[in-house]
Amino acid sequence: MLKVPEHQVAGHLAIDGKLGPLVDDSGRFYKPLQGDGRGNKELAFYESFSSDTRVPEHIRKYFPVCYGSQLLEASNGSGLLHHLVLQDIVSSHSNPSIMDVKIGSRTWYPEASDNYIQKCLEKDRRTTTVSLGFRIAGLQLYEGKESGYWRPGRREIQSFTVYNVRSILRRFVSSNSSIGNESSDCSFAPSIYGGSAGILEQLLELKAWFEDQTIYHFHSCSLLILFDKESVSKGSTPVPVIKLIDFAHVVEGKGVIDHNFLGGLCSLIKFVSEVLSDSKESLIKDCVESEKPGICTDNGNCQQS
Amino acid sequence: MLKVPEHQVAGHLAIDGKLGPLVDDSGRFYKPLQGDGRGNKELAFYESFSSDTRVPEHIRKYFPVCYGSQLLEASNGSGLLHHLVLQDIVSSHSNPSIMDVKIGSRTWYPEASDNYIQKCLEKDRRTTTVSLGFRIAGLQLYEGKESGYWRPGRREIQSFTVYNVRSILRRFVSSNSSIGNESSDCSFAPSIYGGSAGILEQLLELKAWFEDQTIYHFHSCSLLILFDKESVSKGSTPVPVIKLIDFAHVVEGKGVIDHNFLGGLCSLIKFVSEVLSDSKESLIKDCVESEKPGICTDNGNCQQS
Repeated sequence: MLKVPEHQVAGHLAIDGKLGPLVDDSGRFYKPLQGDGRGNKELAFYESFSSDTRVPEHIRKYFPVCYGSQLLEASNGSGLLHHLVLQDIVSSHSNPSIMDVKIGSRTWYPEASDNYIQKCLEKDRRTTTVSLGFRIAGLQLYEGKESGYWRPGRREIQSFTVYNVRSILRRFVSSNSSIGNESSDCSFAPSIYGGSAGILEQLLELKAWFEDQTIYHFHSCSLLILFDKESVSKGSTPVPVIKLIDFAHVVEGKGVIDHNFLGGLCSLIKFVSEVLSDSKESLIKDCVESEKPGICTDNGNCQQS
Repeated sequence: MLKVPEHQVAGHLAIDGKLGPLVDDSGRFYKPLQGDGRGNKELAFYESFSSDTRVPEHIRKYFPVCYGSQLLEASNGSGLLHHLVLQDIVSSHSNPSIMDVKIGSRTWYPEASDNYIQKCLEKDRRTTTVSLGFRIAGLQLYEGKESGYWRPGRREIQSFTVYNVRSILRRFVSSNSSIGNESSDCSFAPSIYGGSAGILEQLLELKAWFEDQTIYHFHSCSLLILFDKESVSKGSTPVPVIKLIDFAHVVEGKGVIDHNFLGGLCSLIKFVSEVLSDSKESLIKDCVESEKPGICTDNGNCQQS
């Protein structure tokens, strides 16, 4: 009944006798509790978070629902192991395009050991974490029935430059996203990044909370961003999803905002805004250049009159 | 004609035969060009900044005016030396209270050498830079004609904790700010932090720019925050001043926002907001508790009816 998740883009996979998360058919995601206390820290975070009345209702939707923990046969055959039982965010999507974006210009926290800090710092400098305030930690782009998914390997992802990240944020919402295609059309940007339920509005809602909340500092957390390209192509407008995941390194805020997460979030917001405004500009250009006069509406659609 | 600045709160002082900045009587501040290229980098920044048409006019007021460079007798008697000629921000104030707040949760930049990064990181961890996203780097509080100024020494400043910083942000706008006074009254908070020309509004204006500008990354820069307590006490409402200073480590933004500066700025904004709202709350309490019925006006004054 339990199986390996089809659309896991980061972290250890439960294949080849390795330990990794599992999913069931009822929409639950089973994450083995990580060793050296990290698993218990993540469980403790979910327990604290779910009962914390200071967290506003409209913010809870950005976190997976947690159903506690459960003893299960581990995927590596090592016997019974405690698993976090979480909402499976991806299962209800048939062909999801997914980005796992680790937020913050540092992934370490002040209380950590010198060794841990140096290890994180080295990786933060090697990736775009320091320069951008975030890095892409996992990725799959659905490119259509024939080509299937683009799933870059871990090494390729870790070598992404600022230029790559900008280009991926464009390809993520393009209809012509195949590898090697230099000029992404960004045709889904208005409906996925834009609009009142789009990625940008959701990021701005999160930002407003992070400007104020001093409860938690989310070190090394990711934003999972996903949508179903197939249904956009078919003309329906699915609501793109944003969820925060990975809470093994969350610490108490102690009355200070999470300026590290907030700074990175603002940087991501700027990138997404730019893709969106570029796509609107090119749409206006298309309207002007087309023979029929057109009006570019607020949501970026080109209304032919 | 040139003399040692009376109100310099950070950096090297031009006393005891040391090299430091000088001022004249016409409101100019002469900063010796620092060695190892830093001085020239700062001069280059001022030149680039002053001619950059992408910088909006309403943002320029947050930077000192630069009048180029000039050869002057150095304060340490070593002979002629190039000095940056800047607007003297402090001279027009008779009894200024001043904070030098170094913004950002890291003071190093990605392109720096490993040695430089480790040196900065060590200091960033030792001070509140990592935890708060900013640290107080210099301070003088005017406490009145009799007590004069509170000017903590460099070591004391470098040992400030989060608790100390919060308390100093309260004492900065209190009429009873003498050392050892635990319950700062924050009576100047509404007129200095609050109001349409107050510190908070100015910080928010800067924040809006930093959410958008991708021209510069301001590493190891400070916000100089100052006002004249004497004139507040006398009933006039002076406009408090905010200026960015120290640009020896500014690098090109290359299309990315300065998420490091922005995060720290948002953290400072949160602290200032809290002092302001606390002061309004205690004012409401005072109004309620006083025998005469009172109305707490928007600007935080208690109107007795």
